[in-house]
Amino acid sequence: MIAGIPKATAQRISLYLQQAETLRERGQATVSSEELAKVLGLTATQVRKDLAYFGQFGRPGVGYQCDELIQHLRRILGTDQVRPVALVGAGNLGRALASYPGFQRRGFKIVAVFDNDLQKVGKKVGEHIVQDIAKLPFVCRRDNIRLAILSVPAQAAQNVADQLVEAGVQGLLNFAPATLSVPAGIAVAAVALSLELEQLGLAVKLRQQPQTPAAEPDAGAPQ
Amino acid sequence: MIAGIPKATAQRISLYLQQAETLRERGQATVSSEELAKVLGLTATQVRKDLAYFGQFGRPGVGYQCDELIQHLRRILGTDQVRPVALVGAGNLGRALASYPGFQRRGFKIVAVFDNDLQKVGKKVGEHIVQDIAKLPFVCRRDNIRLAILSVPAQAAQNVADQLVEAGVQGLLNFAPATLSVPAGIAVAAVALSLELEQLGLAVKLRQQPQTPAAEPDAGAPQ
Repeated sequence: MIAGIPKATAQRISLYLQQAETLRERGQATVSSEELAKVLGLTATQVRKDLAYFGQFGRPGVGYQCDELIQHLRRILGTDQVRPVALVGAGNLGRALASYPGFQRRGFKIVAVFDNDLQKVGKKVGEHIVQDIAKLPFVCRRDNIRLAILSVPAQAAQNVADQLVEAGVQGLLNFAPATLSVPAGIAVAAVALSLELEQLGLAVKLRQQPQTPAAEPDAGAPQ
Repeated sequence: MIAGIPKATAQRISLYLQQAETLRERGQATVSSEELAKVLGLTATQVRKDLAYFGQFGRPGVGYQCDELIQHLRRILGTDQVRPVALVGAGNLGRALASYPGFQRRGFKIVAVFDNDLQKVGKKVGEHIVQDIAKLPFVCRRDNIRLAILSVPAQAAQNVADQLVEAGVQGLLNFAPATLSVPAGIAVAAVALSLELEQLGLAVKLRQQPQTPAAEPDAGAPQ
C-alpha cells in the first residue's frame, strides 16, 4: 500500500492505460469497465474499484471515453508531464538504457548520466556526457531530479542508492541484482527481467500442452 | 487467454511464486490465500481461482506449505527445469543481458549468442563466443532452443523474429522497440522498461501527496 492505494491497483493503472491507448489506436472511441476487465482477466467491479481510488470518473452504464480515460490515467501516473531522471552506471546496460526510446514516450527524460570510472567520465553515451559521480548531489539538487535508474554492479548498488537518497532522489529503478535498503518514504522498483522470461516460458509451455487446462474453475458455474 | 488460462492469471502465478519465496526466506512455513491476496491487493477467492486453473492444490482452511507451493508454482511455470535460450544481438543491451545473473536463477540458461555484424562474430560476450546469425537455424534445432531474446535494433527485429520462428523457436522476449508480427501459436513478450519507471514515478507521486487518497471505495463498507 502506498498512500492507501494497493500496489496491485497501482500496477493495473499502467495496464488500463496501455489498453486504452491500444483501443484508441484502433479507432475505438469508448471503452467499458467490462471490456477492460475481460482483457486483463479481472472483474468489471475490480476495474471500477481500482479507478475509484483516484476519484469519481466515468458514468455507470456509459463507460469511458478513451481520450478522457487516457488523460485521467496519465494524470494519475504523473506521466502527463516530462520528469527528469538520473542514470547511474555507464556500463553495457547503462549505455543501452541511456538511449532507450521508450522512457521519453512515457514522460521520462534522462537528463544526466554518472559513473565513478574515470575512463568513462567525459565520454559520450547517447546524447549525454558521462559525469563524475562526485557531481551527483549538486546536479540532482540543481535539476530537481526525483527519479534515478541504477545500472551499476551489485556490490556498488547500495552505496550509490545511499548517495542518490542523500541527494533528494525519491524513487530508484534498480537493475542491479542486489536488494537495496532505503529509508521509509523512498520507493524502489527492481526490474525483473527474469520474470518476463518466466512468463514467456509459461506461455510456450501452455501452448505445447493439450488445449484443455487441468481444471476449469468456472466451467458450468452460472455467470 | 492461452490454453484457457487468462493472461492476468499467468502473470499472477509469477507474483505468487515471488511472494512464497520471500515468505520462505523469512522462515515462514505456511501461507494462506488470504495472506497472498492481501499483499497483491486481490481477494482470496481470486487467488484460489487462479491456482485452481492448474489443478487441485492446497486444503481449504489450512493454506499452503510454502515449500510445496513454491514447487507447485515452479512446475506450473516450467522453471523447475533449466531451459536453453538463444540471444540475438550482441550490442550494449545484448552484452548486458548475456551476463545478467537473474535468468539462470529462474531456470533459463543463455546457450548461444548471435549477431550479423562480422565485427562482433567470434568475439567473447560474457562466457559466450558471438556466432554468425547464419548459424542460427542449425544451432537452435541442434540444441532444441524454444526461447529467444531479441536485443537487436528496431529495423532488424521482424527479420530476426522470422528467422527464429523458422528455426523452431516458440517464445520471443523482445527488447527491440518494434511490434513483431508472428504466426499464431508463437508467444511474444515485450519488455516494458518504461512501465517499470512509470510505476516508480507513481509511487513517488503518491508519497508526495497527502496520505488520504481522493476516494476510499471500501471505507465503511461492510467486508
